[in-house]
Amino acid sequence: MRNRRFLLRERPTGRIEPNTFELDEEEVPEIGDGEALVRVEWISIDPTNRTWIGETPTYLPPVQIGEVMRAAGLGRVVKSRHSSYEEGQLVQGLVGWQEMFVASDEALLLPVNEVADVSPSAYLGVLGMTGLTAWVGMTDIGKPQPGETVVVSAAAGAVGSVAGQIAKLNGARVVGIAGGPEKCAILTEQLGFDAAVDYKAPGWHERLTEATPELIDVDFENVGGEVMDAVFARLNLHSRVVLCGLISGYNDAEPPPGPPHFGNLLIKRTHLEGFIVLDHFGRISEAIGALSGWMADGKLKPLETVVEGFEELPRALNMLFDGANTGKLVVDVTAG
Amino acid sequence: MRNRRFLLRERPTGRIEPNTFELDEEEVPEIGDGEALVRVEWISIDPTNRTWIGETPTYLPPVQIGEVMRAAGLGRVVKSRHSSYEEGQLVQGLVGWQEMFVASDEALLLPVNEVADVSPSAYLGVLGMTGLTAWVGMTDIGKPQPGETVVVSAAAGAVGSVAGQIAKLNGARVVGIAGGPEKCAILTEQLGFDAAVDYKAPGWHERLTEATPELIDVDFENVGGEVMDAVFARLNLHSRVVLCGLISGYNDAEPPPGPPHFGNLLIKRTHLEGFIVLDHFGRISEAIGALSGWMADGKLKPLETVVEGFEELPRALNMLFDGANTGKLVVDVTAG
Repeated sequence: MRNRRFLLRERPTGRIEPNTFELDEEEVPEIGDGEALVRVEWISIDPTNRTWIGETPTYLPPVQIGEVMRAAGLGRVVKSRHSSYEEGQLVQGLVGWQEMFVASDEALLLPVNEVADVSPSAYLGVLGMTGLTAWVGMTDIGKPQPGETVVVSAAAGAVGSVAGQIAKLNGARVVGIAGGPEKCAILTEQLGFDAAVDYKAPGWHERLTEATPELIDVDFENVGGEVMDAVFARLNLHSRVVLCGLISGYNDAEPPPGPPHFGNLLIKRTHLEGFIVLDHFGRISEAIGALSGWMADGKLKPLETVVEGFEELPRALNMLFDGANTGKLVVDVTAG
Repeated sequence: MRNRRFLLRERPTGRIEPNTFELDEEEVPEIGDGEALVRVEWISIDPTNRTWIGETPTYLPPVQIGEVMRAAGLGRVVKSRHSSYEEGQLVQGLVGWQEMFVASDEALLLPVNEVADVSPSAYLGVLGMTGLTAWVGMTDIGKPQPGETVVVSAAAGAVGSVAGQIAKLNGARVVGIAGGPEKCAILTEQLGFDAAVDYKAPGWHERLTEATPELIDVDFENVGGEVMDAVFARLNLHSRVVLCGLISGYNDAEPPPGPPHFGNLLIKRTHLEGFIVLDHFGRISEAIGALSGWMADGKLKPLETVVEGFEELPRALNMLFDGANTGKLVVDVTAG
């Protein structure tokens, strides 16, 4: 049995290029005692993946040249000599960009408690780290109150689409910022956002002003750069900024310029907090309980873009930076 | 009896200029029922004064052209037809740049509870809004723990000199950033700071790195701009930024550039909070209790620069932006 895998060959300076990764193939090793062989079925494509292949350590060490590209994913146990895994079980964790993964106590995957009527890919999205990110950030830092105005950037993305819906469920008025009329239509027509602002359209600053007549109480920030600064310019007194992602700068070799309206954080007594979902793994059950309940009631609609085929992984990562996905972007490794 | 006062004549675009204020004189009005006449003795010179004479509303409306310049100060009641004020009493509040103030229910001044062996000017500094600012910011947002590293910018200034000493009293290692070797010497030799970095000296970024080998847990930020960004670049995991002032930009007509290391607030899960002391008036007794106790024990040393003479007020305001003061800058209105 062969295992295809993508190794990091050269650190990109901007976008992913053909020489960034190398498609490699190895013989699948025989598993020993305390190991389990997992067939990878779904791989999660996240903006943070791009930060892991720069030279600078972030909250995880950089992927080294020659190593398998790091990524979260889902797989099924096909053979087990480890007491915690049984054949046929769905598991998740940092499987990387490869078709087969050897799990052990050192390379741990977590069992997935499958809920009826849910596609397995949901455990990478709304019922996985994506959902936990949106839920923790909005619940613990954003704390939207009924009648308050919440703005979500990258609102048609994986985290943003869930974060905005959670704010609606808390009774807030929710404005999404997204790129292009199609995404904006999804926000207002499918997901129940009160307004959407297309940041690629001329005059979008004025649209944002019109959409937030009582200023902005919560900024769920996924983008950074000019979009974030436009939101900072309209922060309300005692506002909160959930600093979740800064995707606009992830392809830049140098730190991007800071927000010119930074001073508003002082004037408006804003509480800003950066957070990384890794710190909040312990609350995944609580989050899944809330999120799956809302889904079952039809109050929370998952958005997903599926790319088929293992060899499409590098292209899929670039899609994030082209805004080519709506909702959670996953690769169906076994299709195609 | 005549009342001299400074009226705002022209909004400055940068520094205070000779045409910014106009020295005016009026007859002191006879007070009516419910009024008290106060002779102003001390006027507090604060960086925020500069933000009040720009066009843009901040946390208070701008001072209007032709109005008396707004400022905090101390005075004594010389005549009273108001039940809350008695002759000889020391009172404080927004007296403005003038020699006489008519207090009423609409123009309220607060009584000062005088502590023995303390100069009245201390009620504008360490035992007034300045001390409350340092105490609330460090206690509620900074929360320095024993052994943590705290950096204070404008550390030889009114708020910074108190904030750094409070962090020391909490057991933290404290590094001050200040302009010039004299101020740095005051920090380490008089106030007990562990290290001081002179941001006007070449190579100061390296000095900051050497002075913070275990990174920075708390940034008590008074300055903004390049100094703040150098601190952001060295923030530790789960650090706190007490966003108290951004004096480096207050003379600028346009918002200054934001900090290029803004992204570190995300990576390091930083909690940043802007605050304005006006929101915390209710805690002044608690703060004065703590601060005057430390002063009586010799653990907290107030720093003060006194300028003599009413007519020196405009020059005194520019002194703040030239870094010409150490500690609290006050004008002794009755001297000179």
